[in-house]
Amino acid sequence: MDNFIFRNPTKIYFGKGMEEKCGEAVSDFSKKVLLHYGGGSIKKTGLYDRVIASLEKAGVQWVELPGVKPNPRLSLVYEGIRICRKEDIDFILAVGGGSVIDSAKAIAAGVPYEGDVWDFYEGKAVPSEVIGIGTILTIPAAGSESSSGTVITKEEGQLKRPFGSELLYPDFSILNPELAMTLPPFQRACGVADMMAHLFERYFTNSRPVELTDRMIEGALKTIIHNAPKIMGDDADYDSWSEIMWSGTVAHNGSLNTGRLGDWGSHQIEHELSGIYDVAHGAGLAVVFPSWMRYVMNHDIKRFVQIAVRVWNVEADYYSDEETAEAGIVALEAFWQSLGLATRLEGLGIPADRLEEMAGKCAGETDNPQGQFVKLYKKDVLAILQGAL
Amino acid sequence: MDNFIFRNPTKIYFGKGMEEKCGEAVSDFSKKVLLHYGGGSIKKTGLYDRVIASLEKAGVQWVELPGVKPNPRLSLVYEGIRICRKEDIDFILAVGGGSVIDSAKAIAAGVPYEGDVWDFYEGKAVPSEVIGIGTILTIPAAGSESSSGTVITKEEGQLKRPFGSELLYPDFSILNPELAMTLPPFQRACGVADMMAHLFERYFTNSRPVELTDRMIEGALKTIIHNAPKIMGDDADYDSWSEIMWSGTVAHNGSLNTGRLGDWGSHQIEHELSGIYDVAHGAGLAVVFPSWMRYVMNHDIKRFVQIAVRVWNVEADYYSDEETAEAGIVALEAFWQSLGLATRLEGLGIPADRLEEMAGKCAGETDNPQGQFVKLYKKDVLAILQGAL
Repeated sequence: MDNFIFRNPTKIYFGKGMEEKCGEAVSDFSKKVLLHYGGGSIKKTGLYDRVIASLEKAGVQWVELPGVKPNPRLSLVYEGIRICRKEDIDFILAVGGGSVIDSAKAIAAGVPYEGDVWDFYEGKAVPSEVIGIGTILTIPAAGSESSSGTVITKEEGQLKRPFGSELLYPDFSILNPELAMTLPPFQRACGVADMMAHLFERYFTNSRPVELTDRMIEGALKTIIHNAPKIMGDDADYDSWSEIMWSGTVAHNGSLNTGRLGDWGSHQIEHELSGIYDVAHGAGLAVVFPSWMRYVMNHDIKRFVQIAVRVWNVEADYYSDEETAEAGIVALEAFWQSLGLATRLEGLGIPADRLEEMAGKCAGETDNPQGQFVKLYKKDVLAILQGAL
Repeated sequence: MDNFIFRNPTKIYFGKGMEEKCGEAVSDFSKKVLLHYGGGSIKKTGLYDRVIASLEKAGVQWVELPGVKPNPRLSLVYEGIRICRKEDIDFILAVGGGSVIDSAKAIAAGVPYEGDVWDFYEGKAVPSEVIGIGTILTIPAAGSESSSGTVITKEEGQLKRPFGSELLYPDFSILNPELAMTLPPFQRACGVADMMAHLFERYFTNSRPVELTDRMIEGALKTIIHNAPKIMGDDADYDSWSEIMWSGTVAHNGSLNTGRLGDWGSHQIEHELSGIYDVAHGAGLAVVFPSWMRYVMNHDIKRFVQIAVRVWNVEADYYSDEETAEAGIVALEAFWQSLGLATRLEGLGIPADRLEEMAGKCAGETDNPQGQFVKLYKKDVLAILQGAL
């Protein structure tokens, strides 16, 4: 097991009706907040009204900044920073999915920083302080509600970049599975792919031994695989939604990568897809991952055998690790397809003509390798994208 | 899944050499600490010298309070409270196992409290503030290094009582598996039984659904079962020790009982054994649990089938849930016996003559039921103790 330092201070409020605690939760930190959200679906569902009522009851003032889009944009982050400075706001309440929360994290880091917040995403600076964040999660997927990371897209150059800091863990997050039930089926499926991808990124590691976290990741994957089909229909199934929502948080709260170094190469590759084609992150991951798995599996075939047998219940072919491993990848593809996700670029409507460009952007000017399990240079990224055609 | 609120703020420093960060870790909180430890084994192993060197380097002063015994005593807690008040100390560095840490927690809660700290253990008061705590763990077992609980024994009346508060999570805990390698084999085995018992207490619940946490608990149990035999020998096996130590923390840090109500009846029964006979907590649990399992299994036989099949690899007898469940319990007994633990009262040298007295103390004057999975009254506790003869 690798040495590690771990602390996740996010306070989780989980369950039915928990959004009604948001005013009380906020008021532990501030009496004036930026209320940050997306395209207004929270008004249709009535969530907005409940949030406002709770803030009012707790005597918390707010300034609104709606308009966060999937693959959240840097321009709106600048707007949020400007508002917080002008209005002397020191806490952000993010109501939405990972995009809203990631946007809030960017604003939180940018407010006290004298330079350009994009510096953090380019690795030119690290934040020494941030303003506070609370979240009300409406999309189980990104895990940003209890993670230290954020991903933002800079419109100029179509650059989608992540950055992380211990300071970015939200102070609290409210998770009511009922709030996710109005999501369209495609978005549900994308969320499932996203949280599974977070588990895969951690699972495929060169750190040894990692038995406890291996088994806990496998348990989370099995839970998602068992429950995801049950949340795809129209009938509300709170029980399955609760398993999915909590799995999505646990997948990305840092506990499952204690003592191990994750990969994250597939995420980097997917960011290039989303950056250019604006596809949903989970949808992009469902295309990248199977191809990545086939490209790297011979680096540590036993790890792919293990996941095939333990997670996908593949009967091991003891004479051929490759066959066992491949059966696991086929099972993954079939599972994602069963949720309505494409597992090939064609299914996303992405043609073959810009693969080289995406591989180049992923590698950067100096051909920096991506990923840890296997280092991926431009030629490798290109091969993985071609394998996904 | 039950609604829940969860936050575990303990910062974990895990791995080789991490104890050398203790001075730095402490100095984030205080410049003067109570250095609390046990019988002096930390001096023999050289750990004491490394701790002192680290405190000195960080400019941290300390006052020492050694002498914590297994089943830590209230009298020493009073002494610690007195010292902290007199010396104006606002942080405790606990170096040792669960007993030292539990004693530190009691002191931490007692220092700012005007009444008798035992009030908390009797449920007569709840703490509104505590002083800070950091730990350096030397015994993987109790999980107190990242839990909100403490158990103290009051000599008068041989009363062993737990209490918990969110305020009691340590501020940081340092976990270096190497520090545990000097433990005698019996203590290693007791630690393994203790952490498994913490997982069982969470596993046996009436909350539904609890799939994610079920699977993660099962993963932790399998990891412990796989690695425990490898730490029993003389040859240092850092890899296995690291899995055991981290499993012991994860078993009790609260993450695995999110959304579920645990049982804890067996712990209450064991406290009566330890209170009177001063047996090691883990050794007592290894006797109580199999008997408890047999006594309650028909309350939810499927749960016992599930653990037998998933954790103990029992081949299910689909025509007899009882046989499958019993095979799981037999496997547990055989496993604990393989580590050198007794699974009957006789093996602890405990005779049959005070079972009624222990059952009576456990139930209290008003015959309060213990446990949540099945409520246990005095007659049930007595039957479980008799079943362990």
